Amino acid sequence: MIVDCAHYRDGVRQHEGQLPLDVAESCVVGDGDFVWLGLFEPTVEELRDVGARFGLHELALEDAYGAHQRPKLEDYEDSYFIVLRPARYDDEEEEVEFGEIMLFVSRTYVIAVRHGAASELKGVRRNLEAHPELLQAGPAAAVWAILDKVVDDYQPVVEGIDNDITEVETEIFGEQEDATRRIYFLKREVIEFHHATAPLLGPLESLERGAFPTMDDQLRRYFRDVADHARRADEQVTAQRELLTSILEANLALLGARTSTTVRSISGWAAIIAVPTFLASIWGMNFTHMPELDKPWGYWIALAMMAVAVILLYRFFKRIAWL
Amino acid sequence: MIVDCAHYRDGVRQHEGQLPLDVAESCVVGDGDFVWLGLFEPTVEELRDVGARFGLHELALEDAYGAHQRPKLEDYEDSYFIVLRPARYDDEEEEVEFGEIMLFVSRTYVIAVRHGAASELKGVRRNLEAHPELLQAGPAAAVWAILDKVVDDYQPVVEGIDNDITEVETEIFGEQEDATRRIYFLKREVIEFHHATAPLLGPLESLERGAFPTMDDQLRRYFRDVADHARRADEQVTAQRELLTSILEANLALLGARTSTTVRSISGWAAIIAVPTFLASIWGMNFTHMPELDKPWGYWIALAMMAVAVILLYRFFKRIAWL
Amino acid sequence: MIVDCAHYRDGVRQHEGQLPLDVAESCVVGDGDFVWLGLFEPTVEELRDVGARFGLHELALEDAYGAHQRPKLEDYEDSYFIVLRPARYDDEEEEVEFGEIMLFVSRTYVIAVRHGAASELKGVRRNLEAHPELLQAGPAAAVWAILDKVVDDYQPVVEGIDNDITEVETEIFGEQEDATRRIYFLKREVIEFHHATAPLLGPLESLERGAFPTMDDQLRRYFRDVADHARRADEQVTAQRELLTSILEANLALLGARTSTTVRSISGWAAIIAVPTFLASIWGMNFTHMPELDKPWGYWIALAMMAVAVILLYRFFKRIAWL
Amino acid sequence: MIVDCAHYRDGVRQHEGQLPLDVAESCVVGDGDFVWLGLFEPTVEELRDVGARFGLHELALEDAYGAHQRPKLEDYEDSYFIVLRPARYDDEEEEVEFGEIMLFVSRTYVIAVRHGAASELKGVRRNLEAHPELLQAGPAAAVWAILDKVVDDYQPVVEGIDNDITEVETEIFGEQEDATRRIYFLKREVIEFHHATAPLLGPLESLERGAFPTMDDQLRRYFRDVADHARRADEQVTAQRELLTSILEANLALLGARTSTTVRSISGWAAIIAVPTFLASIWGMNFTHMPELDKPWGYWIALAMMAVAVILLYRFFKRIAWL
Amino acid sequence: MIVDCAHYRDGVRQHEGQLPLDVAESCVVGDGDFVWLGLFEPTVEELRDVGARFGLHELALEDAYGAHQRPKLEDYEDSYFIVLRPARYDDEEEEVEFGEIMLFVSRTYVIAVRHGAASELKGVRRNLEAHPELLQAGPAAAVWAILDKVVDDYQPVVEGIDNDITEVETEIFGEQEDATRRIYFLKREVIEFHHATAPLLGPLESLERGAFPTMDDQLRRYFRDVADHARRADEQVTAQRELLTSILEANLALLGARTSTTVRSISGWAAIIAVPTFLASIWGMNFTHMPELDKPWGYWIALAMMAVAVILLYRFFKRIAWL
Repeated sequence: MIVDCAHYRDGVRQHEGQLPLDVAESCVVGDGDFVWLGLFEPTVEELRDVGARFGLHELALEDAYGAHQRPKLEDYEDSYFIVLRPARYDDEEEEVEFGEIMLFVSRTYVIAVRHGAASELKGVRRNLEAHPELLQAGPAAAVWAILDKVVDDYQPVVEGIDNDITEVETEIFGEQEDATRRIYFLKREVIEFHHATAPLLGPLESLERGAFPTMDDQLRRYFRDVADHARRADEQVTAQRELLTSILEANLALLGARTSTTVRSISGWAAIIAVPTFLASIWGMNFTHMPELDKPWGYWIALAMMAVAVILLYRFFKRIAWL
Repeated sequence: MIVDCAHYRDGVRQHEGQLPLDVAESCVVGDGDFVWLGLFEPTVEELRDVGARFGLHELALEDAYGAHQRPKLEDYEDSYFIVLRPARYDDEEEEVEFGEIMLFVSRTYVIAVRHGAASELKGVRRNLEAHPELLQAGPAAAVWAILDKVVDDYQPVVEGIDNDITEVETEIFGEQEDATRRIYFLKREVIEFHHATAPLLGPLESLERGAFPTMDDQLRRYFRDVADHARRADEQVTAQRELLTSILEANLALLGARTSTTVRSISGWAAIIAVPTFLASIWGMNFTHMPELDKPWGYWIALAMMAVAVILLYRFFKRIAWL
Repeated sequence: MIVDCAHYRDGVRQHEGQLPLDVAESCVVGDGDFVWLGLFEPTVEELRDVGARFGLHELALEDAYGAHQRPKLEDYEDSYFIVLRPARYDDEEEEVEFGEIMLFVSRTYVIAVRHGAASELKGVRRNLEAHPELLQAGPAAAVWAILDKVVDDYQPVVEGIDNDITEVETEIFGEQEDATRRIYFLKREVIEFHHATAPLLGPLESLERGAFPTMDDQLRRYFRDVADHARRADEQVTAQRELLTSILEANLALLGARTSTTVRSISGWAAIIAVPTFLASIWGMNFTHMPELDKPWGYWIALAMMAVAVILLYRFFKRIAWL
Repeated sequence: MIVDCAHYRDGVRQHEGQLPLDVAESCVVGDGDFVWLGLFEPTVEELRDVGARFGLHELALEDAYGAHQRPKLEDYEDSYFIVLRPARYDDEEEEVEFGEIMLFVSRTYVIAVRHGAASELKGVRRNLEAHPELLQAGPAAAVWAILDKVVDDYQPVVEGIDNDITEVETEIFGEQEDATRRIYFLKREVIEFHHATAPLLGPLESLERGAFPTMDDQLRRYFRDVADHARRADEQVTAQRELLTSILEANLALLGARTSTTVRSISGWAAIIAVPTFLASIWGMNFTHMPELDKPWGYWIALAMMAVAVILLYRFFKRIAWL
Repeated sequence: MIVDCAHYRDGVRQHEGQLPLDVAESCVVGDGDFVWLGLFEPTVEELRDVGARFGLHELALEDAYGAHQRPKLEDYEDSYFIVLRPARYDDEEEEVEFGEIMLFVSRTYVIAVRHGAASELKGVRRNLEAHPELLQAGPAAAVWAILDKVVDDYQPVVEGIDNDITEVETEIFGEQEDATRRIYFLKREVIEFHHATAPLLGPLESLERGAFPTMDDQLRRYFRDVADHARRADEQVTAQRELLTSILEANLALLGARTSTTVRSISGWAAIIAVPTFLASIWGMNFTHMPELDKPWGYWIALAMMAVAVILLYRFFKRIAWL
C-alpha cells in the first residue's frame, strides 16, 4: 500500500496530496529535487512495480519482500539499501514488538518500505516538511529523520524493561514469590532486543563516518548524534542482560534460602508435637507397676508436663529463629 | 560417483546428458568455457583420477578424501579450494545433520565433491542452467549458487531449533516436567551447529571483498547477499545459545521452587495427621483417673476433636498456600 | 543557575566576583584570553541564552538539557563537547550516585554544565586559579582539572564498594546469614558504575593521544595521567564484578551446605525421639503374656532402656557430626 | 641422549647410521646441505656442547633445559627457535599427557630436543627420508614434517575426549549416577589441553604467512595445511569446553530433580504408614464406651480399614507419580 | 631509605659502598656512565630530593609516593617511568602478597623505588655486577634484570596456587567436606593476581618491540624472553581461574548429591523404625476380640515380626543403596 508519495524541491513539498507513481517517476529533473515514497506492507506486485520504475536492485528488492532481515546498510553504486528494526514495548505482555523499515536511497529518491506495527513514519515526514532548511539536504535528511525516530523509540523500550526489572526485584526480594518465569521471559526479550538492535551500530557508524560521500559535515553530526543514542541504548541493554543474569542467580539463592527456612520451621513444629506424643506413649505402656498411673493427679500432671514441653520447645525454636 | 559433468560456453550447457571425463578434460578452449563436474562420495581412485586430469593440488585432494573439514577458502595460485558444511534439521531426533561440500574452482572448472546427506546440489545446477545470464559469469556463478543454497538451508535449521526452544519453554513452565535432558541435547546441537557454521563467515567475507579477482561487481553483490544471510544465521544461533543457557538456569530455579512446594505440601499433610495421632495417644494413656474416659460421650467428643483439628489445620495450610 | 563566570588572561583571573554574561561574551580578544562559565542545572532558557551568545551547536545543547547521557567527547569543528559522569558512594544506602558534567570547550571558552549531586567543581576552579602557570595553557587546563577531579573521585567509590565486599564476605562465611539481597544490590551498583565509567576510557584516550591539536606535550602527559587513573578504576571495578559473581556462587553453595547441615541435625533429633517412642509402643501392646509387664522393676527398666537409647544415639550422631 | 644425527644433501641422507657430532658440525658446505640432529631429554652438558658447536643462542638453550615452555616461535637473526607441545590421550586415566619438542632451525641445521612421552619423531624422519623431493626443501621441510606430526596427533586426543564426553552423557542421563567428579576432571583436561595448544596457533600462522623468508610458496601451503588442522583442533576443544560446562549445569539440574523425586517417594511411603498408624492409635484409646471395641468383628474391620487406607493411598500416590 | 647508590662505567661499578646523592648526581659524564639508585619506601622528602636532583617528572613522582599503581610504562621525552607489581605467595595464609617497584630510567640513571615485601632487588644488582658484559648495555640492562626477577618470581606464586588447587580438589572429591570458603578465597587471590599481572603484558610487549630506541637487538631478545615468561604466567593464571570456577560448580553439585544421599539414608532409617512402631500400635488396640493377644506365644511372635520387618527393610534399603 502506498502511504504517501511526494516531490520535494529545495526542501519544499511541491504539491498537496499524494503523487501518482508515474508522475513521481518523471518529475525529478534538477539537483535539488527528490521523491519521497512511503509504502506499508506492499504486495510483491507493488514492490516490483516500484522497483522497475526507480531501477532498484533485485537483491535489495528480494530482502524487502521477505521481511525478517537484520539491520544493515548496503551500497549499490549510486544507491543505498538500509534495513532498520524499529521496536515498541508492550508493557502488558512484557514483550518487545519489532517492525521493519527498508530504505532505498539515492540522490533522487527515498523509498521507505515498512512492515509491522512499530514503524509509523507519518510524523517524521510531517516534522521534516515543517523544517525546509533540513529537507534541503535532500534524501540524506529523510534518512536521518527516520533513523532518529527509530533510535529514539528504543529509549521507551529500554525504560519499559527497566521498570519491569525493578518490579521483578521487588517481587523476588519482597513478596517472596517465585518469579523465575517472569525473569526468564524478560531476559528472553532483552536478548532478542539486543540482537535486533546491536547490528544497527555498524551501519550507523559507517553513516557517521560518512557513507554518503555527498553528505555535508553539518548533517554528519546529526548522524553521529543518532549513532551516539544507539550506542547508549546498546550499553543499557547490555547492562540489563547482566542484571537479569544476576537476578536469576539471586533468585536461585533465595529459593534455596527459603527452602532452608521452610525445612527448619517444619522441623521445629515436628519436634513440638513429637515430644508430647512420646510422653503420652510412655504412660500408655501396660506395666503393672507404674505408680503415677494410680495417682488421682497423675493425668493432670502428665498433661501439664506435655504443655511445658511444648512451651519450652516453642521458645527454644523461636530463640534459634527456626519458627 | 560422478553425478553430472557438463561443458558450458557463455552460460549455455553444450550437450544433453553427462560428459565422459576425458572429453570434459579437453573441451575447455575459450575464455567463456568451463566444465562443472559433480561427485558424490567418490572413491579415492575416482578423486585421484579427477585430480590428475584437472591438476588439483595434493593437499586439497587429501582434504577431499577425508571429510570432516572445517569450512574454509584456500587459494592455490590459479585455483581455489572451498569447503562448506551444509546442514539439515532432523526434527524427530532434534538433531542437526551435517554434510560436506568441497569445491575446486578455477577459471575453467568447478568440481564439487559432496559427502553426507544435506548436500543435494542437483536443483542448484538446474536453476542456474535456466538462467544463462548468470551462468555466463563462469565458475564464480556456480560457486555463488552453491553457497547460496548451503546458506539458505541454514534457515530451516535455525527455525527448527527455534520451534524446539518454544516447546521446551512450554514444557518447563507449563507442564512442570523435568526437561533437563532435552535442553542439554538441544544446546549440544546448537553448539555443534554454531561451530560448523561460524568458520564460514571468514571465507564468505573474503569472497564478498573479492577473493576472486576477476569477479565483477555485480556478482560480488550476490556474494555479499550470501554473507549477509550467513551472518544472520550466525547471530540467531548465538541468541539461541544464550536462550538455552538461560533456560537451563531457569529450569534449575523451577526445580528448586518445585521441591520447595513439595516439601511444604508434605509437611502440611504430616501436621494434619500428627495432631490427631497425638490426641489419640493422650487418651491411650493408662492413668486410673482420666474422668473423660468413663463418660459415655467421651469417645465421640474425642473423634470430634480430632476432626476439628484436621479441618482447622487443613484450612490453615490452605490459607498459607502450603497445600 | 550560573555558579561562576570569569575572564582569564595568561592564567590570571581578571576580576573579583562573577562576570555578567554579556560582558563575558565580549571580553575575549587576545590569544591568551578565555572565559570559564559554570552552570548548575540551568533552565532551558538559560542554556539557550548561553548557547546563542557563545554559538554552541544545537545537538550538543540538546544533550545538555536532557541529562542522562553517556560519557563522550565530540568535536564540532572549532569546539568540543565533553560529557562526564562523576560518581559518589553513599555508604549508608550502598548506592552509587551519579551526577553529570557537560563541557563546551573552544579556544576562548569553557562552559561547564552540571547536573546532580556528585559534580561539585568549585574546588577545581579555586585550585587552578592558585596555579596560574597551569591555567596559562587555557581551556585545556580547565578541562584537565575537571577530568582529574571526576576520575579521582571514582577512587572512593571503588574503595567503598571494596569495603562492602569485605563486609559481605564476613557476613556469608562468618555469621551464616543469607546475604543474597545485599550481594545482588551491590552487584547491581557495580554493574551500573562500570557502565557509567567504562565509556569514559575512549574519550580520555583520544585526549591522551591529543584530541586538542593545539595542546602541548606537557599537558598531554597530564591527560595521560588521568587516563591511567581511569583505567585503574575500570580494572578494579572489573575485578569487583568477578568477585561478586564468585560470592553469589559461593553463597549458593553455602546455602546448600547449610540446608544439608540442618537436615542432618533434624534427622538426628528425630531418630533420638523415634527410638524410645517405638520402645514405649512395644510395652503398650495388649498381649496377655508379656512377662516383663508384671515385674515390679519393669517400668523402671523400660525408662532406663529409653534413656540409654537416647544417650547412645546422641553420642553416635555427635560422633558423625550430625548434631 | 643423541637419538640420530644425519647429514642431508639435496634431500638425500649422505650416510647410514648416526654421525658423530664433530663430523656433523663440519660437513655442511653447500647450499643444499643440512644436518638433522635429534636429542631426547639431553643432559645440560650435552645441550651445552651442541649449543657451542652450532652457535645456538643462550636464551633459547635455557628454555630447552627447563622444559615446561609454552608453544612459541622466536627468531634469532639467522635461526629460529620453535617450541611445540605434543599431546597423547591416556584413555584409561582420562588424562592428556604432554611432551615437549624444541626445534633450533637455521639454513644448515635442524636440532630437535624432545622431552616427555608423546614426542616420538623417528617415524617423521623415516617418512621424510623416503620423500627426497620434500627433503630437498631443506630444514623447513623437516620443521613442517614435525609440526604436521604434532598437530595430527592432537586429533586422537580430541576424539578420545569426545568419547569420554559421550560416556559421561550416557552416565548422567541414563544410569542416574553422580558423575560430578568425572565431569570435573574431564573439564580440567580440556582446559589444560586448550591452554597447551592454543598458543601454537600464533606461531603456526606466522609460519603460514612466511616466517621463513626463504621458504617457497609450495611449502608455505603445507604449513597452511598444518595451521588449518591446528585451528580445527582448537575449535573442537572450544566446543568441548562449552559442552562440559553445559553438562555440569545439566548434572546439577538432574541432581535437583532426583532429590525432588526421592523426597516425593519418601513422603508417599510415609503417608501410607502414617494413616493406619493413626487408625490403630484411635482404637488404642481407653474410653469405656467405644462400641466397636466389643464387637467380635471389630478387630477384623479395623485391620481391613487399615488395608483399604494403604491401598487407596498407594494408588493415589501412583497416580500422581510420587511412587 | 636509600638502599644503594652506585656509579657504573662500561659495566663496572666504580667504587665500593654507597655513593652520596650529591656525588652521584654529578659523576655522570660520558656515554658509558650511569647511576643506579635504589630506594625502599622513601619518605616524600627523600623522593622530592631525588626528583629535584635528577629532574624527574612531577606526575611520575606523585605516582611513586602513593603506591597502589597499576603496572605501566610511560615515556617522558628523554626518560621512562615503569611500574611493576612483584608478588609472593604466602602458602600458610593462601594469600598473594604484592609489592611495588617504580623505575625511573634515562640514559644516565636507573632509580628504583620499592614498596612492600616482595620487592627485594639486592640479588639483582649483585648478579648484574658479576656480569659486566651485560651491565655495559647501561640502564636498559638494569631494567631487564629487574623485570626478569619480578616475572620469574610470578612462577612460584602460580605453582603455590596450583598446589592449593590440587589440595582443594582432594578435599572436595575425597574428604567430603565443604570447601566453599577455601575455594572462594583461592579464587579471590587468583582474580587479584591476574589483575595485578595482566596489565604488565602491554608494557613488556612495548619493551620487546623496542620502547627504548637505543636498545640493541641482543638486549631486545632478553626483553622478549621476559615477555614470554609473563605471557606464560598470565595463561596459567587464566587456566587457574577457569579451574576454580569449575571447582565451585562441581562443589555445588557434590553438595546437592550429598544432601540427596543424606535424605535417602535418613528416610531408610525412618522407614525401618516406622514399620515396627506401626505393628506395635496394632497390638496396642483395645478390641475385645483380638485372638493373638491371648496366646502365650503372641508377644514373642509380635517381637519376631518386628525384627523380621526391620531386617527385610534394612536389606531392601541396602540393595537400593539408600543406606
